[in-house]
Amino acid sequence: MALPSIHHAVDDTFIEALSAIVGERVSRSDSVREHHGQDQSYHAASPPDAVVFAHSTEEISAVVMLCAEHVVPIIAFGTGTSLEGHVAALKGGVCIDVTQMNEVLAVNQADMDVRVQPGVTRKQLNTYLRDTGLFFPVDPGADASIGGMTATRASGTNAVRYGTMRENVLSMTVVMADGRIVRTSSRSRKSAAGYDLTRLFVGSEGTLGVIAEITLRLHGIPEAMSAAVCSFDSMEGAVNTVIETIQCGVPIARIELLDEVQMDAINRYSDLDYPLAPTLFFEFHGSEAGVQEQTETVRDLADGNGGGDFQWATDEQQRLHLWQARHDAYYACLALRPGTKGMVTDVCVPISRLAESILETQKDIQDTGLLAPIVGHVGDGNFHLCILVDPDDTAEIERAMALNERLVLRAIAMDGTCTGEHGVGYGKTAFLTAEHGDGVSVMRAVKNALDPQGIMNPGKMIPGN
Amino acid sequence: MALPSIHHAVDDTFIEALSAIVGERVSRSDSVREHHGQDQSYHAASPPDAVVFAHSTEEISAVVMLCAEHVVPIIAFGTGTSLEGHVAALKGGVCIDVTQMNEVLAVNQADMDVRVQPGVTRKQLNTYLRDTGLFFPVDPGADASIGGMTATRASGTNAVRYGTMRENVLSMTVVMADGRIVRTSSRSRKSAAGYDLTRLFVGSEGTLGVIAEITLRLHGIPEAMSAAVCSFDSMEGAVNTVIETIQCGVPIARIELLDEVQMDAINRYSDLDYPLAPTLFFEFHGSEAGVQEQTETVRDLADGNGGGDFQWATDEQQRLHLWQARHDAYYACLALRPGTKGMVTDVCVPISRLAESILETQKDIQDTGLLAPIVGHVGDGNFHLCILVDPDDTAEIERAMALNERLVLRAIAMDGTCTGEHGVGYGKTAFLTAEHGDGVSVMRAVKNALDPQGIMNPGKMIPGN
Repeated sequence: MALPSIHHAVDDTFIEALSAIVGERVSRSDSVREHHGQDQSYHAASPPDAVVFAHSTEEISAVVMLCAEHVVPIIAFGTGTSLEGHVAALKGGVCIDVTQMNEVLAVNQADMDVRVQPGVTRKQLNTYLRDTGLFFPVDPGADASIGGMTATRASGTNAVRYGTMRENVLSMTVVMADGRIVRTSSRSRKSAAGYDLTRLFVGSEGTLGVIAEITLRLHGIPEAMSAAVCSFDSMEGAVNTVIETIQCGVPIARIELLDEVQMDAINRYSDLDYPLAPTLFFEFHGSEAGVQEQTETVRDLADGNGGGDFQWATDEQQRLHLWQARHDAYYACLALRPGTKGMVTDVCVPISRLAESILETQKDIQDTGLLAPIVGHVGDGNFHLCILVDPDDTAEIERAMALNERLVLRAIAMDGTCTGEHGVGYGKTAFLTAEHGDGVSVMRAVKNALDPQGIMNPGKMIPGN
Repeated sequence: MALPSIHHAVDDTFIEALSAIVGERVSRSDSVREHHGQDQSYHAASPPDAVVFAHSTEEISAVVMLCAEHVVPIIAFGTGTSLEGHVAALKGGVCIDVTQMNEVLAVNQADMDVRVQPGVTRKQLNTYLRDTGLFFPVDPGADASIGGMTATRASGTNAVRYGTMRENVLSMTVVMADGRIVRTSSRSRKSAAGYDLTRLFVGSEGTLGVIAEITLRLHGIPEAMSAAVCSFDSMEGAVNTVIETIQCGVPIARIELLDEVQMDAINRYSDLDYPLAPTLFFEFHGSEAGVQEQTETVRDLADGNGGGDFQWATDEQQRLHLWQARHDAYYACLALRPGTKGMVTDVCVPISRLAESILETQKDIQDTGLLAPIVGHVGDGNFHLCILVDPDDTAEIERAMALNERLVLRAIAMDGTCTGEHGVGYGKTAFLTAEHGDGVSVMRAVKNALDPQGIMNPGKMIPGN
């Protein structure tokens, strides 16, 4: 049985008009539609009525103009690896898949920037850059597209040193809701010329326009890298080590916290035998001497906070193995309780409240009887829960959702945010007002001004959108 | 003779209503109005009809509500040190002076942030922070207010390492055009929860709302600092040293370029005897060993690019003396040709185009017969001209303005910006479309959505605003 169409305007005539723009690169097949209505989250899927595979900014513009004329929703799609239901076509409409727009357009070595199409993935980009001595640091778990990462203000383990997409997008070309093609800024490193349209579109989740081209900052591959693992007596000790590391100005590249439950999961999954204790994974970048100095400083700080010995991974192979274990955290969680699905969520708090926030969350998890390992990019105050739920157990899912809600409200009460890096999608719209108050009305005013028909990714981010 | 009133709604009844909010802290005296209609630029002054000295966010909100009711323009005022006519009351109205809101409200040492009122100046803040081991790095020439620096997206000599106001404002409290009080974000280091209102208001030049409170990121005072001066055979050699320094990942704190004319001015003004050649001023921050390593790297790079000996300033006194000479650049320029005024302008280009941009500008200056020393924050590709003009010579002023226009259009043609750090005010509105094209219509839509009556700093930034 074919999936039902939910937007009446997407009829045969409309599809013909789409074909006139993109030729055969339009699909209404069930499998294509299902694939495009679902991300990697636990949120319910919702397939679009049709999917087009765009090849150029001009094609995107023409498709958007057609949709605008018929008031048909538009959802941009990269790798579909979002975590809050961002790509679900809640009101049907046309999904614009940009994965075939996957060219690296220009590397400017002297300026340390690169211009890419939105379908380029982060791993593809770094492979492309390998011989330039430059790299792109932002690394969410998935091999996401640069377009999607820009749209969701993605982040990852390197953000403590290199920043998130907010800091690493220099400029964009965006197709507005009426089809106009707009460049958000020049390629200069800084500018005081007008509103910061670049930052307005970074993290806008497809609700203001479709991102058709991105210019990114790049960074020099450091001369030396080294990684280490250290267990702590207490969560406070681990977090204080993080706070002091940053206060000392150590330019640490990665500083990741895993709680005892997550360490148990990783040990079992990757056949390791780390102590079951709050643990920090570190990575240091710099010159040989600089890395040496950084590690000595951090080792002293860890010592003073109940940290154990450092287990080093200095050669490339060991280092990759260590981070593979960290990156496999999600699968390790699932393996703790086979047959479950992971309800993944994230919050971010001022780092001074991090220990308290994590300890209260651990107690809350215990009280619920749920299994939910914690892992975090703690240099930023950002941490994740992977709540393991039986997809057939409605009561358990409800308990998990209530846990998520308490987690988020605790973070907001600590002057933190309902999401540090996953975004709002339609999974967290209900929390936006709790966090921003009247700020939501400002967001809504901007949204209505730039998308008066409400066709850009409707149902996402702003409550009532 | 009293200055004329240009906004008819600001009559005695209106002033009484203002007094009901701020008591005696409202003025219509000529001297107060004149002072508030003029910044440090060469642009014509335009006094407001009245000035209120606000003491709280709530007072600002009440004043804005009153102005909104009577459709009276509102101009926020800090130290009046802007450079593109930002504070001129082009359509009269009420100036809200925030200089008496000058309290540091909360320092969060663990989180390395601080919450301040908008009238706190950058030097006042750093004096306040002295015992905390933390500092606030953004340093435009003037001892500007944090509110004004936020509103103009200010920058300075440290931006290459520490970023501009774009990177250093964590959150703000803003009074919107209808008097609503909105906080732009939580205090967490990162967030993916909604549009980036913080970055929308940073650099909005008072055209979207009045900034009533700011939370800033702070940085640890480095263990060691050292500064040096190096002359070069050629402009290309100096710029290539900058490019290579950044490519090598040297976390240089300051890297300033002065051309031969500017060096001549500084030599005369500060009684120094540097060679008359393109010159870089460096500053290195880090650990003792780190600074040592950085300086060795940069010295090697300078050597390879026709740089001469490094003249060091390692102790605090020498270092301050060196930077004082740099900061006195403006006065040194004026002393080159007594009786003139400085028409100060800035542009920013991708660093790969910097040498070309400066060389073409130098040739252009020579062709015009004007005197215009060049100095720049070249790590960002940002440079300034101080065009010396006789204020009574209309023809010379016109030649200077034409030079400025060619400078700006060259920068835009090189994918740069019409202003890296001074902002648009009303001095550069004419260039906004040349730089942003249809992006200006997006800015205008945002402006109209958030300030439908057009009362927030009218005539600034957006052409036709």
